[in-house]
Amino acid sequence: MSATDHLLHTNASFVGTYPGGRPKQPKLRLTIIECMDSRIDTFAALGLQIGDAHIIRNGGGLITDDVLRSLAISQRALGTQSVMIMHHTDCGMHGFDDTAFRAELAAESGQEPTWDVPGFTDIEGKVRESLAAVRNCGWILHRDDVRGFVYDVQTGKITEVQ
Amino acid sequence: MSATDHLLHTNASFVGTYPGGRPKQPKLRLTIIECMDSRIDTFAALGLQIGDAHIIRNGGGLITDDVLRSLAISQRALGTQSVMIMHHTDCGMHGFDDTAFRAELAAESGQEPTWDVPGFTDIEGKVRESLAAVRNCGWILHRDDVRGFVYDVQTGKITEVQ
Repeated sequence: MSATDHLLHTNASFVGTYPGGRPKQPKLRLTIIECMDSRIDTFAALGLQIGDAHIIRNGGGLITDDVLRSLAISQRALGTQSVMIMHHTDCGMHGFDDTAFRAELAAESGQEPTWDVPGFTDIEGKVRESLAAVRNCGWILHRDDVRGFVYDVQTGKITEVQ
Repeated sequence: MSATDHLLHTNASFVGTYPGGRPKQPKLRLTIIECMDSRIDTFAALGLQIGDAHIIRNGGGLITDDVLRSLAISQRALGTQSVMIMHHTDCGMHGFDDTAFRAELAAESGQEPTWDVPGFTDIEGKVRESLAAVRNCGWILHRDDVRGFVYDVQTGKITEVQ
């Protein structure tokens, strides 16, 4: 049985505990932006309930144009007003050489990557940079309650970055 | 107390139940791509454990260049080999008029959006289109085990799209 088949089997028990439909507008009016990292169980880490918050995740939890697109839709079409940006320790994008990576992809696929998303070395500095990217983006309607955090993958603890 | 402060308070209890560090390479060698929708608790819906799988989420769960960037990093730098693409019922991107939305943002912010990510009307057709986008992308190393699903936000049930 493949991993995917095993997970689908588990989904059958989840259905029995599902609380039922909730509105598509997030109840807490909150959007969380974070990394795709496998050690972040966002619902459990923050005690979220079904229907509480939008969750946007990509490689690095970085504020790319696609993240800003998603956040703009979250606020303008679905009523969210607050943002949590969460980077984490031991990230795959820490020290990542994006220039070499893009060159490798172009050489192997013959298709030039369209992105330019460098890795980072200073995690708290990266949180501050991400906060500034959201606070300075005119596509985003509500920019007063935008806060930044670091999630520790060894302990699950979330610490705010001022 | 703001929603964010409340969630941070809850994080303190999560720390007490945290299983400890896990490798950054996902144990199931799996990447899940899905929407930011607030009604999808991915860990609970699939019985995932900390460290099992990468989770990429954006507005619509659509296969944008940023999703392909993240998936390429997931496979090439962090060893994943399988992909689950999950769209869901009652999506905010269902019938979404991206052209009007981009015009609204450009007019309000004076900054032209860089993306062009249309909404959709046929959810199963959209899953098949997303599957093709990943299977046809030369940046992605492993394209044999790429499967597509629809998550029902009323029941939590996940159904495969063939």
